[in-house]
Amino acid sequence: MQIYIGNQNYSSWSLRGWLIFAQYNLEVEVIKLPLFKPEFYQTLKAITPTTKVPTLVDSNITVWDSLAILEYINECYLNGQAWPNDPSHRAKARALACEMHSGFTALRNEMPMNCRATRRIKLSETARHEIERIDQMWSQQMSEFPEEWLFGEWSITDAMYAPIALRFQTYQISLSDLASQYQKKVINSPAIQRWLNEASLETDIVQEDEAGDEV
Amino acid sequence: MQIYIGNQNYSSWSLRGWLIFAQYNLEVEVIKLPLFKPEFYQTLKAITPTTKVPTLVDSNITVWDSLAILEYINECYLNGQAWPNDPSHRAKARALACEMHSGFTALRNEMPMNCRATRRIKLSETARHEIERIDQMWSQQMSEFPEEWLFGEWSITDAMYAPIALRFQTYQISLSDLASQYQKKVINSPAIQRWLNEASLETDIVQEDEAGDEV
Repeated sequence: MQIYIGNQNYSSWSLRGWLIFAQYNLEVEVIKLPLFKPEFYQTLKAITPTTKVPTLVDSNITVWDSLAILEYINECYLNGQAWPNDPSHRAKARALACEMHSGFTALRNEMPMNCRATRRIKLSETARHEIERIDQMWSQQMSEFPEEWLFGEWSITDAMYAPIALRFQTYQISLSDLASQYQKKVINSPAIQRWLNEASLETDIVQEDEAGDEV
Repeated sequence: MQIYIGNQNYSSWSLRGWLIFAQYNLEVEVIKLPLFKPEFYQTLKAITPTTKVPTLVDSNITVWDSLAILEYINECYLNGQAWPNDPSHRAKARALACEMHSGFTALRNEMPMNCRATRRIKLSETARHEIERIDQMWSQQMSEFPEEWLFGEWSITDAMYAPIALRFQTYQISLSDLASQYQKKVINSPAIQRWLNEASLETDIVQEDEAGDEV
């Protein structure tokens, strides 16, 4: 099984797909392609219709979307344990994962993931509302599952929001106490520490993902 | 169980959530709210964090995203039959559903769903590429499953692409033969005919979804 990812410093969707392998110690060959360079497109166009990362190849099966990768691994290799077992929790976890998958576009555009940087940034009102929404949601889950993952055990929803925790660190976003507790849990987790270490070894600069003022 | 939807003429995400109930004759109370009017926000803000449609309420469970609604109904009421049974087909079906869920933004912005209209429109190059991608994908599936749904039996992926079939009709998009065959199958299906009939009874105009020149 191979997962194609982009630069670990910048590629937030790659992180979401990669994280389930790291979290459960599942074996996978990680093939890192330099974002937006000719090699990136040349390699991907032979295997995926969208030439995007992450893309998973499992012998004759190709999955070219992060959420679809997470669902696939959960079903085929984890016996469903990466969603909460309780149906009402599972429904909410899926709604939150999907909300991230299709939304938060202002936040995503204005605060590109940039693991190694520390920045100050001026945000639009829409982006500030999106941050409030995430703060409120993380806080709500932490009040239900103190010091745990969003639904107690780690789930796909935690994979979906992991890059947000890193962005909030890069752009020094102030969070409420409970949301900040969750952010620290994500960042201090072994899988994310491993991702950050690997990202820190990269030297490529993707100019369009360099936003904000250096601190 | 209640599903909150917007105007059937315009709300493509509502159609995706509603369709699984119609397709399988599952009982649900449909609560239609007029898009972007005060009543819309007042009703939704009491039940969903995002004040968007579709939103499903199943006693103490609320699901506020179309793909999450489809997954929920499939798991809890359809015993999984709304995804293909074969793992490789299911993986591809999920990748295609997710591709729709987070993508095709040019097409979605430039060609709003507008069931009752027939229009001519000038499209950006990006939107034209997105149409080509869908044409190629529908054709590929139709060559594998002639005159069937995208994966033979009806699946969540068909729900995700149903509004696209209607948009292609509204804006008179030319398709290859196989893709056109699939478009006709979608539009002629009893569930979509029922949606179109209900949409045709609406009189509200949502100005921001009125694009293109009358034909």
